[in-house]
Amino acid sequence: MAEPNPTAGVIIIGNEILSGKTQDTNLQFIGQKLAELGIRLEQAIVIPDIEATIIATVNDYRARYRYVFTTGGIGPTHDDITSACVAKAFGVALVKHPEAVRRLERAYQRAGLSDERMKMAEVPDGASLVDNPISQAPGFQMENVFVLAGIPSVARAMFDSLAPTLQGGPAIIAQSVDGYLAESTLAKQLGTIDEQFPNVEIGCYPFFRNQRFGANVVARGTTASEVHEVIDLVFALMEELGGEPERPD
Amino acid sequence: MAEPNPTAGVIIIGNEILSGKTQDTNLQFIGQKLAELGIRLEQAIVIPDIEATIIATVNDYRARYRYVFTTGGIGPTHDDITSACVAKAFGVALVKHPEAVRRLERAYQRAGLSDERMKMAEVPDGASLVDNPISQAPGFQMENVFVLAGIPSVARAMFDSLAPTLQGGPAIIAQSVDGYLAESTLAKQLGTIDEQFPNVEIGCYPFFRNQRFGANVVARGTTASEVHEVIDLVFALMEELGGEPERPD
Repeated sequence: MAEPNPTAGVIIIGNEILSGKTQDTNLQFIGQKLAELGIRLEQAIVIPDIEATIIATVNDYRARYRYVFTTGGIGPTHDDITSACVAKAFGVALVKHPEAVRRLERAYQRAGLSDERMKMAEVPDGASLVDNPISQAPGFQMENVFVLAGIPSVARAMFDSLAPTLQGGPAIIAQSVDGYLAESTLAKQLGTIDEQFPNVEIGCYPFFRNQRFGANVVARGTTASEVHEVIDLVFALMEELGGEPERPD
Repeated sequence: MAEPNPTAGVIIIGNEILSGKTQDTNLQFIGQKLAELGIRLEQAIVIPDIEATIIATVNDYRARYRYVFTTGGIGPTHDDITSACVAKAFGVALVKHPEAVRRLERAYQRAGLSDERMKMAEVPDGASLVDNPISQAPGFQMENVFVLAGIPSVARAMFDSLAPTLQGGPAIIAQSVDGYLAESTLAKQLGTIDEQFPNVEIGCYPFFRNQRFGANVVARGTTASEVHEVIDLVFALMEELGGEPERPD
């Protein structure tokens, strides 16, 4: 890369992901958005709702990455412990955020604001709110850590709210080409192309579609002309090998 | 839990997951299967195709968990570095496994076994093979680390091949109930139920379906009668609160 891209890490909090009950989809969404913003997602981790684990992981990630995003565990029930854990990770108190209280009062005008609902207004001392246009209860930002809901529609809305505040690098451009070829047929010449373009990351992924195996080659980089050149070369290679190449994007 | 369940960790290897290009589905599958086998999936991590990261993560996980499963990066192309990294993590050579060579020879009888294809027969010295009934190129087991393909149909077939060799604990039973109620409406009484059943893990997850918000409560434990009792109590609570409860499973 000509200029370095800022880095990010994602912490997915929730027993339901580890038990296989729930299919996480937030990681893919956040990964795509970060790439568009020119932020390199370096690692993601899925951890259970255990206080010591959440605290240690937040402290590890916030030291290692420019931006950290957590999903899950900010609701009103007994298993929603993320906000309290993030406060402990930063060594600050958990406090009621006045603006969050106002938003919850508006949202629960008719139903009433019980103690459990009020829990959703608690953030680490010093945090700023991340808007939740869907169900009002906000996420929050504490230094470089953004704490988002787990429910995908809300996580996405929160990410879109905070995205303009992130400082990205040059956008990471991805292009790909599919061909009905065994990966192994391409492997040698693809390795040669990879060596010729040190600033382009070239991935080759097998697929199985309509009862046929094929390979999807993806080129990613911050210089569009190089990414296009790689894809043109791979397209030509696949054509030569009889792989009926197609550009899915 | 009356008896402890063996633990597991999953390492998902691949830039394509972090860039958002590919939606991982292997974690959910493995999580479900492990729960059925009575093995507790404690953590999962998504890491890029970077040698030092893969080696460090494999060494960290194999020391911490009874079983480790990796997915991705065992194909024939330049970005498939998992097998070599696992060998380095164990401090052993990468060797051609004679039985893997035979299987690849059969699979590529007509196309021919190039150097790149032969790469798929390489395993850490001392590893045993994990069968791949779909595309032949095997995964492998090195001590407590199982190395699987990334392509979901193959990862699943490999997992099913190795599952009978895992030593599980008491099966982790999960039951759930859905209701059209805000989580916050349930929160207090759910917390009380949670305190009454220390051996049952109770999770509450908001959902948004048919333009309505609701809560899904999941109880997990190794004693079926306790899990059922919790779900009966939550069902009754939801009914009392007008939440139209349903049991999805």
